Amino acid sequence: MTVSLTLYYAPGACSIASHIALQEAQIPFDVRSVALDAGEQRSPDFLALNPKGRIPLLMTPFGPLTENPAILEYVASLAPEGQLAPVEDPAKLSRMREFNCFLSATVHVAHAHGPRGGRWAKTASALQDMRTQVSNNMLSAFELIEQTLQEGPWVLGDDFSIADAYLYTFARWLEMDRVDTRGLKGVLAHRARMEQRPAVQAVLAEEGIPYSVDLKPRGHG
Amino acid sequence: MTVSLTLYYAPGACSIASHIALQEAQIPFDVRSVALDAGEQRSPDFLALNPKGRIPLLMTPFGPLTENPAILEYVASLAPEGQLAPVEDPAKLSRMREFNCFLSATVHVAHAHGPRGGRWAKTASALQDMRTQVSNNMLSAFELIEQTLQEGPWVLGDDFSIADAYLYTFARWLEMDRVDTRGLKGVLAHRARMEQRPAVQAVLAEEGIPYSVDLKPRGHG
Repeated sequence: MTVSLTLYYAPGACSIASHIALQEAQIPFDVRSVALDAGEQRSPDFLALNPKGRIPLLMTPFGPLTENPAILEYVASLAPEGQLAPVEDPAKLSRMREFNCFLSATVHVAHAHGPRGGRWAKTASALQDMRTQVSNNMLSAFELIEQTLQEGPWVLGDDFSIADAYLYTFARWLEMDRVDTRGLKGVLAHRARMEQRPAVQAVLAEEGIPYSVDLKPRGHG
Repeated sequence: MTVSLTLYYAPGACSIASHIALQEAQIPFDVRSVALDAGEQRSPDFLALNPKGRIPLLMTPFGPLTENPAILEYVASLAPEGQLAPVEDPAKLSRMREFNCFLSATVHVAHAHGPRGGRWAKTASALQDMRTQVSNNMLSAFELIEQTLQEGPWVLGDDFSIADAYLYTFARWLEMDRVDTRGLKGVLAHRARMEQRPAVQAVLAEEGIPYSVDLKPRGHG
């Protein structure tokens, strides 16, 4: 079965999780880059597809689908069985969802208080206060992830899954968020391991973004 | 098959989503109330079960499971097939996950900037700024939900699912967050419809919390 899929993404943004999953699934798909800096995500055309004005957005046969964890599981359902998600193992499947939800609702949110603090406060001093907390909040979250990776080599142990693509997304932001990574050896090894995969290499090339070794600290504002 | 399940919850907190799902699934489970006001979620005993120091926490045969969306799908997998999630319909299943993820990563986070702003900023003025934005941010999110409910009577249309239990959780917070609900007729009708269900009534009694009609505006701090 061939389905028509188009991923709306921005280079290096959280949409890279869905991009990697599509590439790993070895199914045909198209991509369209959305110019976040120019505000294209708030254009009438884009808002008609996703009123939330966010990426990633995956056009599917049943319409536009948003939210990384939902897109990731949908893509996994199109891949050869079990290749991207432990669909036959309720315990592992629960662990995968628990992990993805932590990334979505805690890790991504912790990061967003740097570049997107205006979602939750308006005064310049509040935005500055929020930016100051980002590196510590990201570190706390990643210290929990470091524990999860003790077994390895992948988030769920021996088997690669969409959780790995999603983790890699945020692990790429550690330098930008000025996180002290000295206690995150498992996370850094996982990030390097991801970049050995042909699918990840293809996505980095397509998005035109650097390998982790070339990521630089920069902070927000 | 009978599995041993214990839900750690706090009355009226987001754990009510998992509580309702367990009750709707008509499977045996135990509950344990966690005293959030007394900081029990940060006690060594609780942190040993969940290092994140959060509820809900579901003790399962494969250990402690956290994060509402993950618990909800696990509970749905234990219920008679399709009763709590459209497991055979990839499109509806994706819509359910998209909706649950929006609740977890956007709605819950918007609310949390009232009572839990200290997660993301430290100064008194920043916390006050965050509290000021809560009602508008919750309204914006619920206006999108209002559109989702146009078909009804449930989030996914004709079929009840765990997404309804999860939505009800946050719809109970509209008064606390001082949200202008005049444009949210579908949301309020959904909330009332939920409270007609015997499972929801049983959970309200067990948690000792009021029906929506008795919820009062109160704001944060």
